[in-house]
Amino acid sequence: MTNSKRRLILVANDDGVQARGLHSLIEIVKPYGDLVVVAPEQHQSGMSHSISLLKPLTANLVQKEEGLLFYSIPGTPVDCVKFALNKLVTRKPDLMVSGINHGSNSAISVIYSGTMGAAIEASLYGIPSIGLSLLDHSADANFELIEKHAKTVIDKVLENGLSPNVSLNINYPNINLKDFKGYKVCRQTKGMWQEDFEERTHPYGVKYYWLTGNFNNLEPDAEDSDEWALKNNYAAIVPVHADLTHYKEFERLKSWNL
Amino acid sequence: MTNSKRRLILVANDDGVQARGLHSLIEIVKPYGDLVVVAPEQHQSGMSHSISLLKPLTANLVQKEEGLLFYSIPGTPVDCVKFALNKLVTRKPDLMVSGINHGSNSAISVIYSGTMGAAIEASLYGIPSIGLSLLDHSADANFELIEKHAKTVIDKVLENGLSPNVSLNINYPNINLKDFKGYKVCRQTKGMWQEDFEERTHPYGVKYYWLTGNFNNLEPDAEDSDEWALKNNYAAIVPVHADLTHYKEFERLKSWNL
Repeated sequence: MTNSKRRLILVANDDGVQARGLHSLIEIVKPYGDLVVVAPEQHQSGMSHSISLLKPLTANLVQKEEGLLFYSIPGTPVDCVKFALNKLVTRKPDLMVSGINHGSNSAISVIYSGTMGAAIEASLYGIPSIGLSLLDHSADANFELIEKHAKTVIDKVLENGLSPNVSLNINYPNINLKDFKGYKVCRQTKGMWQEDFEERTHPYGVKYYWLTGNFNNLEPDAEDSDEWALKNNYAAIVPVHADLTHYKEFERLKSWNL
Repeated sequence: MTNSKRRLILVANDDGVQARGLHSLIEIVKPYGDLVVVAPEQHQSGMSHSISLLKPLTANLVQKEEGLLFYSIPGTPVDCVKFALNKLVTRKPDLMVSGINHGSNSAISVIYSGTMGAAIEASLYGIPSIGLSLLDHSADANFELIEKHAKTVIDKVLENGLSPNVSLNINYPNINLKDFKGYKVCRQTKGMWQEDFEERTHPYGVKYYWLTGNFNNLEPDAEDSDEWALKNNYAAIVPVHADLTHYKEFERLKSWNL
């Protein structure tokens, strides 16, 4: 891992070491350089930008070969990135990729996403970072479309860079290769999840609830939104950042004279 | 809880049911109306916007009295808000307050914060939401300053409202009452945490690591930043939202002609 003439690529995900999407992503970025892969030991879907403050971390070697160092960590996706960048890499990665997530991280889902938590974290270190997700939750999802087309956007990012602390949230539709219309740069769709807590009863009588729900799109006709792009067979690219300040409200609140 | 003439206030936190800051906040908002309090069973510091997708939730009644319904949930702060709004309230709350967090959620810490995860989640439902944090991590932190001054900002929010899907991230300095200079509307300070993973050795020989670190402020002299306000004895109010789109980069990337 010390061949500094080759690019260094950091790979993480939120579905854990065993996920098919992770192994697909490893194959996609292998031609670009040496890889450091750091994945959670367990599924971390919906873990957002969470970090382990109340328990310690360990790093367990999964695989080591020429050009590939692969660790698992009993923590969150963001833990994986922080640990990798502080303890596992010997130089700053040229690129970070996260995923491929089994399931969508479009629209408001970006804030719940562990995949994007990891990509956003890496972007804070000034590393061009890309989160990739496929609109198919199943464990045996078929990543062929991404395997064929990811190169287009990875090449662009390596060639042009991204603005400081910006990462890309890329979602791919779950469609046949021949129906794919290409990439579309989008903004995050306005809308939210409408939950439906499914109630069940434990054998001992206690009620318990599973979080389910549907996305309520508040602007289904907005052609620059990521949901529109996905529904129209494009891969949606949303550039995201971690400055949550609402600048318009920042100006408005000044008039409150607190 | 059916007196619809009184305001309904939703209260959540991330430090869990036992936290002193939660009980301080309950006392602060009691005069404003009926309360529904929903707190995580366990400490959830650093849990960000995470949700429980892989385990079910239950709701356990902690306290029920005239004007107060208090539940604990074995989940995350955002789980608490989603569950409360879907299963526990009989009308839309007029206000949501989160905290009081033991410790800072200023600058980039907002993205790791469970306190702000809960407030942001409530803001997605169109509820004016406020996260409150004190710059003192200790379990026996003294919330006197907030108990005395929170009314000023809560009154303003109830009177003027907040823009749709905006919540307030309010951090209070850990200072004597007499040194407090009042509120300052701010933007999120640019900067990031520089980690230091503290290495220890398990009795069986395995190395393990605790995440620690320091905030690296990239603009210590910016008078409109929340870190500056806090260092100068103001409480910092940052209006935040969950549209992570970086609009400038969105425009720039269109020229990539992907």
